[in-house]
Amino acid sequence: MKILHTADWHIGRRLNGADLLCDQMHVLDQLIDYIKEEEIDLCVIAGDVFDRSNPSQSALGLVNEYLYKINIELGVPVLAISGNHDSRSRLDYGSYWFEKSNYHMRTSIEDILKPVIIDDHHFYMVPYMDVLEAKQYFKDDTIVAHHDVYRKITEEIHGVMDREARNILVGHMFMSNAKASESERPLSIGLSEEVGADLFKDFEMVLLGHLHHPFAIEHDTIFYSGSLLKYSFSEVRQPKGFRVIETGDGNKCRFVPTKCKYDLVHYKGSYEEVINEAVRFEDNNAYFKFELTGLETVKDPMAKLKMIYPNTLELRPVVEAHEKYRSTVDINQSDDGEIFDAFIKQVHGAELTEYQSGLFNKLFKGDADETD
Amino acid sequence: MKILHTADWHIGRRLNGADLLCDQMHVLDQLIDYIKEEEIDLCVIAGDVFDRSNPSQSALGLVNEYLYKINIELGVPVLAISGNHDSRSRLDYGSYWFEKSNYHMRTSIEDILKPVIIDDHHFYMVPYMDVLEAKQYFKDDTIVAHHDVYRKITEEIHGVMDREARNILVGHMFMSNAKASESERPLSIGLSEEVGADLFKDFEMVLLGHLHHPFAIEHDTIFYSGSLLKYSFSEVRQPKGFRVIETGDGNKCRFVPTKCKYDLVHYKGSYEEVINEAVRFEDNNAYFKFELTGLETVKDPMAKLKMIYPNTLELRPVVEAHEKYRSTVDINQSDDGEIFDAFIKQVHGAELTEYQSGLFNKLFKGDADETD
Repeated sequence: MKILHTADWHIGRRLNGADLLCDQMHVLDQLIDYIKEEEIDLCVIAGDVFDRSNPSQSALGLVNEYLYKINIELGVPVLAISGNHDSRSRLDYGSYWFEKSNYHMRTSIEDILKPVIIDDHHFYMVPYMDVLEAKQYFKDDTIVAHHDVYRKITEEIHGVMDREARNILVGHMFMSNAKASESERPLSIGLSEEVGADLFKDFEMVLLGHLHHPFAIEHDTIFYSGSLLKYSFSEVRQPKGFRVIETGDGNKCRFVPTKCKYDLVHYKGSYEEVINEAVRFEDNNAYFKFELTGLETVKDPMAKLKMIYPNTLELRPVVEAHEKYRSTVDINQSDDGEIFDAFIKQVHGAELTEYQSGLFNKLFKGDADETD
Repeated sequence: MKILHTADWHIGRRLNGADLLCDQMHVLDQLIDYIKEEEIDLCVIAGDVFDRSNPSQSALGLVNEYLYKINIELGVPVLAISGNHDSRSRLDYGSYWFEKSNYHMRTSIEDILKPVIIDDHHFYMVPYMDVLEAKQYFKDDTIVAHHDVYRKITEEIHGVMDREARNILVGHMFMSNAKASESERPLSIGLSEEVGADLFKDFEMVLLGHLHHPFAIEHDTIFYSGSLLKYSFSEVRQPKGFRVIETGDGNKCRFVPTKCKYDLVHYKGSYEEVINEAVRFEDNNAYFKFELTGLETVKDPMAKLKMIYPNTLELRPVVEAHEKYRSTVDINQSDDGEIFDAFIKQVHGAELTEYQSGLFNKLFKGDADETD
């Protein structure tokens, strides 16, 4: 069986205010083409189809359209779970009808012991759930962290599992020792999120969502597909795509990269070289985050940058602290004039002129006198 | 064919803050039982399934559950359109999958010329649309009111209609000369909402939603089902239920009343008789709107009423203006003292005492002097 494994579509997500719907469609079109050309038998979506619990109408429309293409037009069964960004009850809407077309959207903790069975493959679908909810559902006070949630869940599944079948778990969690990016919403505050990989050793395969890096974990049987797009500047160097698993005598798993419409670029340098195109980028329409020196005297640099790089999303000024002026003023030992002097040197890279120095003394001391 | 015609469920609606989900389930259960027992062949829902364009999770869950019962459990085809309260793109979510189970949720203006065909019945499904939208869609500047919208739509349908078939239109509009209640949201402000019945004479039957009174119009072939519940105190005297139409040599249409969980009661009288239970109501748990006299000296009358009538939703004080004191003071001809005197007489039903009169003169004139 040829399984396409994807996750973390986050449809409706915005990046620094930029609408990414067209970018998401661009990648989903490649996914659809791949399913068609490579004759994929099954599509697994491991959570966070939507970015928000109450998605916009355009986000709903897009998901509706692409799942229609996969499930109805191409006739490929879809196995999906809800993630921590999704609203379970909203995703559940229509799921009875979806099931009849082999589109299984599982959002409920009650269903984790009922695998979706396709040939000899038993898919245990585990939607994201939080610690408190699992604690109440299982009436088990020893559940205090995410690891405990999955300890309990895997115990329960072990109790019903058919050992002769190919048992595959689909989940949405933070697997131990995996690499996180900035754009995964924390699963909980103040509780350990990490789940130990050893819990899953009785499964032939574990297909995960949540972490955006497709190689967030290196493991023989546990895989993240990674997210559809780079959803934060911390993901700039991450490959994006989906996984394809061919089950058989030995399972073959490979990562298939996709091409984004506009890449994310994080550039550190000087305003001068960027605005004069002394530095060249692969695509000036990329989503840029610039960290630039030399902005002190430029009026509205963002507007000027956008003339050349229209999708500039973030601009941070970098102040060059010249080594020779880097000072360590002890503010308890120095007077106000000395502190100000050191500050100006470090920020502007030049000494105060006599006029500036006089002005400071006059104004600062004048103020001080008044308030005395 | 036995068709059940319902509309205006308004799931998620609140009445003066009271949650009506349980009341709605109570009536929907009767509808389900009827479908089962009377072997209904088809269920038509003529718009406003939801009360808001972005329904709550509990509203979504309820609609999902009941449509599942009708369509999947009982296997009865469902023909539904969006109304003016619904969001078309939200309702459209999942509709591709629904169609495969004979649950046709039509929300799009593009589909009005494609009838849902069941045996020799051709159902033209016309979702609610506003005047501006129709004007743009049809590129027709003569569309300036709702009547023009349906003039255009019926013209278009006439062009494609199979005259040999039983042509039935399902719509959501305000038919001319029909009776409105307080709880239908206006279709437009400043434009005529009314649609003339003569536009529909080529249809064997027209099944409508929008108006909440099941007898809002008296016509041989045009029917409103009325709303699921009484959704405002202006609907207190309206029967509620659904319609059942048996098509055949001659169509037989009847109204089937349902029982509400708690009735709506609008009572006008005195606080005295209500709080002492001198007047008896059929059900003290009904949703009450009281308009009562004798409240002037009662502290927190709402709390006291709720001890006996827990679902009191509205209380309005009625001030008895005694006939003998009803006065017509000409404010241009009278001085301030005379106007105040007449006001107090009318509101309190008693003359000012000498002390009160002196106090008014002193304070009012005192104020006037100060501002001079």
